[in-house]
Amino acid sequence: MKGTIVISKKGVKLKNPILLEGLPGIGLVGKLATEHLIKELKAEKVAEIYSEHFPHQVLMLKKGTLRMLKNRIYAWKNPKKGGNDLLMLVGDIQAITPEAQYEVCNVILDYFEKMKGKRIYTLGGYGVGKIVEDPRVLGSATHKEVVEELRKYGVVFGEANGSIIGAAGLLLGLGKIRRMSGACLMGETHGGYIDAKSAKSVVKVLAKILNIKVDLNKFDERVKETENFMKRMEKEIEKQKGGGEGAMRGDDLSYIR
Amino acid sequence: MKGTIVISKKGVKLKNPILLEGLPGIGLVGKLATEHLIKELKAEKVAEIYSEHFPHQVLMLKKGTLRMLKNRIYAWKNPKKGGNDLLMLVGDIQAITPEAQYEVCNVILDYFEKMKGKRIYTLGGYGVGKIVEDPRVLGSATHKEVVEELRKYGVVFGEANGSIIGAAGLLLGLGKIRRMSGACLMGETHGGYIDAKSAKSVVKVLAKILNIKVDLNKFDERVKETENFMKRMEKEIEKQKGGGEGAMRGDDLSYIR
Amino acid sequence: MKGTIVISKKGVKLKNPILLEGLPGIGLVGKLATEHLIKELKAEKVAEIYSEHFPHQVLMLKKGTLRMLKNRIYAWKNPKKGGNDLLMLVGDIQAITPEAQYEVCNVILDYFEKMKGKRIYTLGGYGVGKIVEDPRVLGSATHKEVVEELRKYGVVFGEANGSIIGAAGLLLGLGKIRRMSGACLMGETHGGYIDAKSAKSVVKVLAKILNIKVDLNKFDERVKETENFMKRMEKEIEKQKGGGEGAMRGDDLSYIR
Amino acid sequence: MKGTIVISKKGVKLKNPILLEGLPGIGLVGKLATEHLIKELKAEKVAEIYSEHFPHQVLMLKKGTLRMLKNRIYAWKNPKKGGNDLLMLVGDIQAITPEAQYEVCNVILDYFEKMKGKRIYTLGGYGVGKIVEDPRVLGSATHKEVVEELRKYGVVFGEANGSIIGAAGLLLGLGKIRRMSGACLMGETHGGYIDAKSAKSVVKVLAKILNIKVDLNKFDERVKETENFMKRMEKEIEKQKGGGEGAMRGDDLSYIR
Repeated sequence: MKGTIVISKKGVKLKNPILLEGLPGIGLVGKLATEHLIKELKAEKVAEIYSEHFPHQVLMLKKGTLRMLKNRIYAWKNPKKGGNDLLMLVGDIQAITPEAQYEVCNVILDYFEKMKGKRIYTLGGYGVGKIVEDPRVLGSATHKEVVEELRKYGVVFGEANGSIIGAAGLLLGLGKIRRMSGACLMGETHGGYIDAKSAKSVVKVLAKILNIKVDLNKFDERVKETENFMKRMEKEIEKQKGGGEGAMRGDDLSYIR
Repeated sequence: MKGTIVISKKGVKLKNPILLEGLPGIGLVGKLATEHLIKELKAEKVAEIYSEHFPHQVLMLKKGTLRMLKNRIYAWKNPKKGGNDLLMLVGDIQAITPEAQYEVCNVILDYFEKMKGKRIYTLGGYGVGKIVEDPRVLGSATHKEVVEELRKYGVVFGEANGSIIGAAGLLLGLGKIRRMSGACLMGETHGGYIDAKSAKSVVKVLAKILNIKVDLNKFDERVKETENFMKRMEKEIEKQKGGGEGAMRGDDLSYIR
Repeated sequence: MKGTIVISKKGVKLKNPILLEGLPGIGLVGKLATEHLIKELKAEKVAEIYSEHFPHQVLMLKKGTLRMLKNRIYAWKNPKKGGNDLLMLVGDIQAITPEAQYEVCNVILDYFEKMKGKRIYTLGGYGVGKIVEDPRVLGSATHKEVVEELRKYGVVFGEANGSIIGAAGLLLGLGKIRRMSGACLMGETHGGYIDAKSAKSVVKVLAKILNIKVDLNKFDERVKETENFMKRMEKEIEKQKGGGEGAMRGDDLSYIR
Repeated sequence: MKGTIVISKKGVKLKNPILLEGLPGIGLVGKLATEHLIKELKAEKVAEIYSEHFPHQVLMLKKGTLRMLKNRIYAWKNPKKGGNDLLMLVGDIQAITPEAQYEVCNVILDYFEKMKGKRIYTLGGYGVGKIVEDPRVLGSATHKEVVEELRKYGVVFGEANGSIIGAAGLLLGLGKIRRMSGACLMGETHGGYIDAKSAKSVVKVLAKILNIKVDLNKFDERVKETENFMKRMEKEIEKQKGGGEGAMRGDDLSYIR
């Protein structure tokens, strides 16, 4: 492999698929929301994304095996006639340099384009620096028409300001160049911790937009799993960055040691 | 997209176009001068430049939509017979590594070459570390002949020393390799703040060089707009670089969060 | 050369070769183990690997000559009928960025694939932060089947946690994508010093797995040589990174000096 | 341009040319020695090397023009029958990352190979951290045979230890892969200042090796010029790296300013 590659299932055919992005980000809002959807909808894994821009390390699993860091895409076929199928993007990490983010996002959009997708919703958190009792879902869209369309479902536009960093922004920006449309849906969140409540708000609004039903009963137990995994990930990636205590496990990263 | 791309209007035809560069730089002198020209001349946008070397983030606009960071080129058709048309380059940012700057500048020169352009003026500030009552316009040119030519219009040569960092220098250096010619026109400026007065000096000298008339009445109100926008940009790009408070809005940039 | 290149002996033919990796890593466990094997088995050098991602410096040798930093692959032909031949990877350094590690590992796997190899054992240390009297060999494998297979030889699975950074992990992760299998064999070690005892444990277990005999008599004197060499390497690479005293010998690395 | 390019004079034909390298390095020993040779021998410039890995800035000259940062190659035709012609490499800067150094050195070697060159002498200083009354010339060679050959001219082998960082080492290491041979000739020097005396020692030994006569009368006045230029260069490049006072002149380097 060179650059970033998608290893995908052959023969997958989808009807007007919509791309949902839920990579790790602020409050893990997008990740929690998307992973819940994948499990509730019993979506099927159709692609794995590996990149030379991801950390050069593998995770050791409890069962004695190891695996590379990656992103994954799951597909769900909408049983409703005329309904949109879904492609859901989740993963261990996001790339961290501009060049790497542009490359990974473009590779994902290549795959989505091949699947004839046109609409993208990226899911994330919008940090406000304080606890939010009843988090709203803020939006920022590629086109004015999408703003009008999504307002009907309770998405609040024109209030989020600043910028969207990473795949949640770039998939939309690069998608627009390819004549796709969509929006970033951001649950209000503190920003300093993992926020299940904010993620649920996003799922609720998204379910309305997609016109699907999503049971939220198992949401909180799944949050616990994700939280544990991400804490471990954070620790492992820290090792690669600079050594220190943690770096004593497994091989270290300087030229020599 | 891969690398840096120009998305340009088809069918644009220009007569001996001159390239003016006004990307963000010291005192925003070049940016203020070029943006004023674009508006006064009612120039038309003919190209957008996107690069994987620009920050991996999108800006959220007040109207609820978002847009990528980019550079833009505007064209103005000179109504005078035999007069030079203009291509004016402005944008949100400059690339920051040597490799990125070389790539972006070369892509811009490719476009300019296709338009059969030969002459380049890059506009900027020359920081002197103190307030300047009556800012002169200092110059540094690709060829001795250009020095002689521009001296007639009041440009001061041989006084600016040191180096010109970024597109203002590289467009001229790389342009010279392509047998283009030109000069960097630098308004004297403090260097520590946005300097409308210095930018006006540059516009005045440039108008003489180009033999065009430019009304300066609306200059100051435009400065205010630019100042507000750039302060916001600065804050947003800071987020991408290192997290902190600002990074709480939108998605953050480490591998995990 | 561009990127990473393998300069290899022509006409080398191997029977079902197994790749052993022993690049510098925690406690130098993998390096000590692999270098001992190479010498005891009188393996022959069949390939040298150079990379633009290795430090841009050459080593001056006592005899008055100099040499580039590199990795090396040695081949051993198993005299037993049906036994596996070996390819053993050692070297001065590992690459340090994700992109560089992915490239170098892929180039090595390209070579291994051409040799029709399928099985990889990467050797390393597993730092536990304290002195270990009787170091066990922990494992992490590409597939469940490999776990079962290697448990029979005393490799302990399911206990090492965290991640494996560098070639020891990436060769297995990237190898798996190419339908290869294998495991990382890690001797328990303190992590803060070069650990011959841990390396011997790894050699013993590996000898059982490979069904070969390896004399350990000369192990300790070889450790001394390696220790001296690596201390020197560490000092030299330090120079390239940041100047200081050491940087006074030979040419320095900033643009100017 | 993309990467690193050589813009060379057409039709240059040389007899068994030897490459001398004198880019900026410790004590500027190599640069002083090579520039003196170029002037004394009245060598002709035959190539300019530009690289996207060099700083993205142009130098403003006193006469009002500007120029890019570059390396240059000068050719000298040996009037003696059977004598070797010379190609002499000097320049403003060296690249600073491993990838950049490998690329630039390979591009130079490509040019040298096209000229049918086989032998390389890189010139530099060997810092010893104290003032040296009578600096010797230490050597490190690509092959044992070169060691024997150069010892006759007073080059001391086997004493310099550590590594040679940058083009002085890499041209030899990469040259060896291309079946070229040569040596790094290092004048002993303090390491903390520009050392004309050390550079003269190198010129003297080199003149013997090349069997040419080199007048040293004008050496010291040339040192002064070089010293002034390099101090200015150092200041300019500092600006590109991190802003601060110096960065106020010309355009600065962050995304915004």
